[in-house]
Amino acid sequence: MPKLNDLFLRACRGEPVERTPVWMMRQAGRYLPEYRAVRARHDFLTLCKTPELAAEVSIQPVEIVGVDACIIFSDILVVPEAMGMELIIEEGKGGPQFPHPIRSRADIDKLAVPDPNHRLKFVMDALRLTRKHLANRVPLIGFAGSPWTLATYMVEGKGSRSFRHIKELVYDNPRDAQALLDKLARSVASYLNAQLEAGAEAIQIFDTWGGILPPDEFREFSLRSISQVLQLLRRNDAPVIVFCKDCGHSLEAIADTRPDVVGLDWTVDIGRARDMVGSYVALQGNLDPAILYASPEHIQAAVRKILEKFGKGSGHIFNLGHGILPDVPVEHAKAFIEAVKAESPKYHR
Amino acid sequence: MPKLNDLFLRACRGEPVERTPVWMMRQAGRYLPEYRAVRARHDFLTLCKTPELAAEVSIQPVEIVGVDACIIFSDILVVPEAMGMELIIEEGKGGPQFPHPIRSRADIDKLAVPDPNHRLKFVMDALRLTRKHLANRVPLIGFAGSPWTLATYMVEGKGSRSFRHIKELVYDNPRDAQALLDKLARSVASYLNAQLEAGAEAIQIFDTWGGILPPDEFREFSLRSISQVLQLLRRNDAPVIVFCKDCGHSLEAIADTRPDVVGLDWTVDIGRARDMVGSYVALQGNLDPAILYASPEHIQAAVRKILEKFGKGSGHIFNLGHGILPDVPVEHAKAFIEAVKAESPKYHR
Repeated sequence: MPKLNDLFLRACRGEPVERTPVWMMRQAGRYLPEYRAVRARHDFLTLCKTPELAAEVSIQPVEIVGVDACIIFSDILVVPEAMGMELIIEEGKGGPQFPHPIRSRADIDKLAVPDPNHRLKFVMDALRLTRKHLANRVPLIGFAGSPWTLATYMVEGKGSRSFRHIKELVYDNPRDAQALLDKLARSVASYLNAQLEAGAEAIQIFDTWGGILPPDEFREFSLRSISQVLQLLRRNDAPVIVFCKDCGHSLEAIADTRPDVVGLDWTVDIGRARDMVGSYVALQGNLDPAILYASPEHIQAAVRKILEKFGKGSGHIFNLGHGILPDVPVEHAKAFIEAVKAESPKYHR
Repeated sequence: MPKLNDLFLRACRGEPVERTPVWMMRQAGRYLPEYRAVRARHDFLTLCKTPELAAEVSIQPVEIVGVDACIIFSDILVVPEAMGMELIIEEGKGGPQFPHPIRSRADIDKLAVPDPNHRLKFVMDALRLTRKHLANRVPLIGFAGSPWTLATYMVEGKGSRSFRHIKELVYDNPRDAQALLDKLARSVASYLNAQLEAGAEAIQIFDTWGGILPPDEFREFSLRSISQVLQLLRRNDAPVIVFCKDCGHSLEAIADTRPDVVGLDWTVDIGRARDMVGSYVALQGNLDPAILYASPEHIQAAVRKILEKFGKGSGHIFNLGHGILPDVPVEHAKAFIEAVKAESPKYHR
């Protein structure tokens, strides 16, 4: 049965579309009163681990703000947890924490490469249930954190400004860093393969912390392990999106790992990016999430500007340049989605 | 009387040098036990406002770690304070705060363009005293925050992750934003001119927050006001360094404002930067400050790599890509300075 709305999948493949598809990173989140209502009754990890609840909040933005794709509600840190690390998430309270961070080779060696259909079965169940409830309205995206980003959280243990511990690992013990990243790449790949088998129709890899490294080290530590994941993926025809935040310096190198789509944050000019790599990957992005604090008129103008920069033709999935901010008015999120729908058709005639 | 060590000034002008000069942003800071000893007896703003103390800590890194330039100890936020804003700085306790942030056009209109020789006389006195105590050993650098970076602090009032208020101002009220930036540009320019008159032999403009904007808005709001400052400066032959953090996307535009030196953070490849703009500006940078957590051997290797990337010839001032981190061992800072001194002469033969 074909999708009722397959704009997202077609745009990922660079196939013609009638208008530019749009979704938002972290679209199932606190800016939605309906999400906050669910969260008022359950803590964050309970939401992740209860397929009925995860499916419910995943579908909320499809129904409430009208996005063209559904991303499964989960957290990238369930993977390190499945590898054997204790994880504490108290949303809005200083971020997630690993009380026993990775600080030695022995810590790395103790980590398991988990069977995702066992230790992360709740994600697979959530994907199956969400697919069912979506009833083919829009495609379902699965996701994982990049090995580097997961390693950053696992080694720091909690939020950091200087990233002292992960950088000490990279600069003083690059072999141990690569051993950790290799284990993570295998874990992430098997996790994503299980998601594809459970019904995910596209995959996004989030590299939130690639940008803390100098360009050479980004390629050696973060991008190399992303490339390893891509090689281990059994994609079939599911598009893969690679999003590395603050890595505009390595756009061509990212595109050379050959995902279907490269995600852009708002510090990259999408017109320049298309000139550089648009002939062989699609692009996703890249509105500054803070523009959603502005008035609907200003949001609409900002959407027009990005559509104009990308120009005519397919290969663009509209999105924010990072996750939607939790205190954005929901009416502004709707205005954003509506603006893309209203303004984009003329770029596809 | 010529400088005993004028490597820094010559490198800023692209003149031949025997070796690459080196200094560190925030070099008068907490990593130095001698600085912590002074701070144990005086709070941060007292240090800034007491010329004898400011001169003492400014000179510490010259004597202790052997840097090739002295930067005056101060804080960029003394300018907004002189414009009429109440400022609270408790170092290490969540950063500086303005309890009454700028939130309206009326708030902007109330700000004064201060006479720096009156309201900021303590900085001029500190410069004069530091010049005297330096006794010509190395050049003295004065500095200011960029108008955009000052505006960001003044409008947010305290640390922020989303920069909601300054971005609302830019996106919803660009004319008010420009009015604020214009007032700041005039204040910063007159402040820097007074510093030059008081004995600063070079100037650095710090744009810490330019990188939170998309490239177009960076140029329209941050870089345009930096350019305005540069046009108002009576430089004579004092070199001007412009350092915009996380703005690698606009390297050519920054160089086009024609400072003598463009500062680079560690996310830019200095070899590529030299290819792009090295024919008309010198470059400063760009070691990842976190490398100073690594062993002296790894620090030395990282220094060699950057020297090799820049290549032969003058026009390079070695520095970190951002301020030195407060918990770096002082022996590692010394190893960094020594490595530049030992490894760089062969690039100048």
